[in-house]
Amino acid sequence: MQIPVNRPYQPPFGQYQAYLERAYANNWLTNNGPLVQELKSRLEEYLGVRHLLLVANGTLAMQLAYRALQVRGSAITTPFTFIATSSSLQWEGIRPEFADINAASFNLDAAAVSAQMHAGVSAVVPVHVYGNPCDVEAFETLRAQHDVKVIYDAAHAFAVKVGNRSVLSYGDASTLSFHATKVFHTVEGGAVVFRDADAYSAAEQMTNFGIISGNKGIAGPGINCKMSEVHAAMGLAVLDNIAQVLARRIAAFQHYKHLLADVVSLPQWHSDANENGAYFPMLLATNEQSERVLAALATAGVTARRYFAPALHSLKDYQYPGMAPCPVAADYASRTLCLPLFYDLTDAEIRYVAQLVRQSL
Amino acid sequence: MQIPVNRPYQPPFGQYQAYLERAYANNWLTNNGPLVQELKSRLEEYLGVRHLLLVANGTLAMQLAYRALQVRGSAITTPFTFIATSSSLQWEGIRPEFADINAASFNLDAAAVSAQMHAGVSAVVPVHVYGNPCDVEAFETLRAQHDVKVIYDAAHAFAVKVGNRSVLSYGDASTLSFHATKVFHTVEGGAVVFRDADAYSAAEQMTNFGIISGNKGIAGPGINCKMSEVHAAMGLAVLDNIAQVLARRIAAFQHYKHLLADVVSLPQWHSDANENGAYFPMLLATNEQSERVLAALATAGVTARRYFAPALHSLKDYQYPGMAPCPVAADYASRTLCLPLFYDLTDAEIRYVAQLVRQSL
Repeated sequence: MQIPVNRPYQPPFGQYQAYLERAYANNWLTNNGPLVQELKSRLEEYLGVRHLLLVANGTLAMQLAYRALQVRGSAITTPFTFIATSSSLQWEGIRPEFADINAASFNLDAAAVSAQMHAGVSAVVPVHVYGNPCDVEAFETLRAQHDVKVIYDAAHAFAVKVGNRSVLSYGDASTLSFHATKVFHTVEGGAVVFRDADAYSAAEQMTNFGIISGNKGIAGPGINCKMSEVHAAMGLAVLDNIAQVLARRIAAFQHYKHLLADVVSLPQWHSDANENGAYFPMLLATNEQSERVLAALATAGVTARRYFAPALHSLKDYQYPGMAPCPVAADYASRTLCLPLFYDLTDAEIRYVAQLVRQSL
Repeated sequence: MQIPVNRPYQPPFGQYQAYLERAYANNWLTNNGPLVQELKSRLEEYLGVRHLLLVANGTLAMQLAYRALQVRGSAITTPFTFIATSSSLQWEGIRPEFADINAASFNLDAAAVSAQMHAGVSAVVPVHVYGNPCDVEAFETLRAQHDVKVIYDAAHAFAVKVGNRSVLSYGDASTLSFHATKVFHTVEGGAVVFRDADAYSAAEQMTNFGIISGNKGIAGPGINCKMSEVHAAMGLAVLDNIAQVLARRIAAFQHYKHLLADVVSLPQWHSDANENGAYFPMLLATNEQSERVLAALATAGVTARRYFAPALHSLKDYQYPGMAPCPVAADYASRTLCLPLFYDLTDAEIRYVAQLVRQSL
C-alpha cells in the first residue's frame, strides 16, 4: 500500500469542465475575468471577509502584502514554518528576524516577539501553523503598542474562525495559499485579505503592472500576479464541494487523534477556534523516535514529512547580529512529523498508518 | 461589428480536455508535473533551444532572469515597450535607464546603448518589439566589450529565427510571455531560455523557494514561479495547432500590409528573420492623425491600441540624473497604433478595418 503525505482534491471532472466551458464561451481566459470576479465574491461571502484580492500563488500574496503595506527594514517571523514565509521577505529585500514559538500552540510567541522588537522592525509575520490560530489578541495589542504592521501567513487557515470572526480579519493583512494540496485550492493560487480598502487598492494595481484601473496611466511599481480563469474555474468547482471536503478532512484529523493522542503530543488548538483538518502534526518524544517512525512508515510505503524542518533561524542566509536563540522551534523541528491527510484518505488507511506509528515508537 | 484588438486563441475544447484528463488521471495538478515536463521538451525541440525554464508568467520570467544572472545597479532598456519590461526591473531593485530606439526597426539602438554605458550598468535589456529581432549581432559585440549581461525581452518573438538560429539563443537569456493573447500561450505563463546550464539551474531552484532538488536543503532566496499542469495542458493543446495559428496570423499581417503599406509606415523587419504575425503596428504621420484613426475605429466598434505609449522614459518614477533624451521613442509613442490581429479575425474584418483606417487618415 502506497500512501502519499498529500494528494490534491479533484472535484468531479464534469463540474470543473462546466466552469471551463464558461471561460471558453466568454473567450476570456485571464485578466480579471468573470470567473475570477465570481470566485472573489463567493470567497468573501463564504469566509466572511472583505477586501480579498485573488492572486497567482500564495507566495506572491505575501510579496504583495509586504509591498502594499510598505514593509521595509526587518520583519519578525517564526522559525517554525515553510520556507516561503521567510524567503518571500528576503526576496523583497526585507530581513527576516526570528522569535521563538510557544511550546503549547507551536505558533510564534507574542511575548518573544515583544522582547525582540527594535526600531528597524516594520512588520511582524505570524503564521497560523497547521491552521491553528495564533494568539491574535496578543498580536493586536502588540500592533497597537508598536509602529508595526501585522501580516499573518494564513496559508493553512482556510475557513478557520475565532469565535464568530474569520481569523483572516485580524492584523493588517492575511495571506492565503490555494495550492493544489491545500484544503481549498485553485491548482496554483492565493489571496490577500486586507483590513483597509486603500491597501487593497494599492495591491490590486501592483498585481497588474501598476496600471491604474481603466488604463489611466501608471501609479507605481507592479508585476503580474493575476489568477487565470482556468485556475478560478477550479476554485469554483472546489468551493461547490467545500463542506464535504472540510467534513472529511476534520473527520480524518479526529480519527488520527483518537488513535494516537495517548502516545504523541499535538499542538494545543486555540480554545475559541474551529479545526479545518489541514494537517495532522504530531510531536514525538525525541528526534530518534521521529527517525524511527519516518523509517518504519517509509518501509511500509507511507510518506510522512518533517513539517517544518529545519527551523529557519538555523539557515546560513538568515544569520544576523544579536539574533535570539529559538530553542523551542529548534527542538520541535527535530521531532515533529505530519502524517498523510487528504480528502480521499480512507479510514482503513488511517488505521494502518496509526498502527505503524504505534508499533515503531 | 465589434472587433477587439486581441482575442485569445482557443484550441478545440476536446483537445484541451484530453490533456486535462491526463492531469486528473495522474492526480498531479502542479509542481513540475508530467505535462509541464512534456511541454518543456516539446518547446525546446520546436524552438530549437536548450535550457528553457517554464514559469507562471512572463513578468516572473524577467524577474527570475535578472536574479539568476545577478543583475544589480542599473540596466539599460528601451522606452518603447510594455511597462512590464521596466517595472520588473524596478520591482527587483534595479534602476531602469533608457536609450533611444532605432528609427527603422523601432528596437533599442545598440549604438545609443553604448553611448549611455557606465560602470553602474550590469545588464542591457533589449526587446524584440512586435517579434522583430533586434540587431542581435551588435548586442553580442556590446556584450563582449562591456562587463554586462544581455537579457532579451522576447515576449513577442515566439518562433522567430535569425537565419537558421532561434532569436532566443542570443544573449545571456531571453524571456517569453505565454499570456493568453500571445501567438503561443498557456493562459498565463512564460519561460526563460538561458545560454548557460548553470544559470538555468540557479533559476530553477529560485522557482521553487530555493529548495535544492530532491529536498536537500535551501540554496538561497526563492519564490514560487511554478507553471501548473492545467496551464501546461493549454500549452500542449495550442502547440498541437501552432502551425495553423502562425500561418493564419502571418496571413492576416500580410493582408493588412497589402492594404495599408502605401499610407502608413511599418517597422523595418530584420532582413534574415521570419515574421510571426504577433502584431500589426503602424506608424502614422502625426499624433493628430493617430487620434483621428483611433476615434474613427472606436466609433465603428473597432479597438486599436497605442502599443506602446507613453514612452517609458517619460514616467515620473523613472527619472534619474543625466538621463538621455529619447526623441525617436517619444515621437513614435505618439503616433504608433496596433490594429486588431488574432487567429480568428476574418479577411472581411481586415478589409473593413483597413478601409476605416484609410478613410480617416
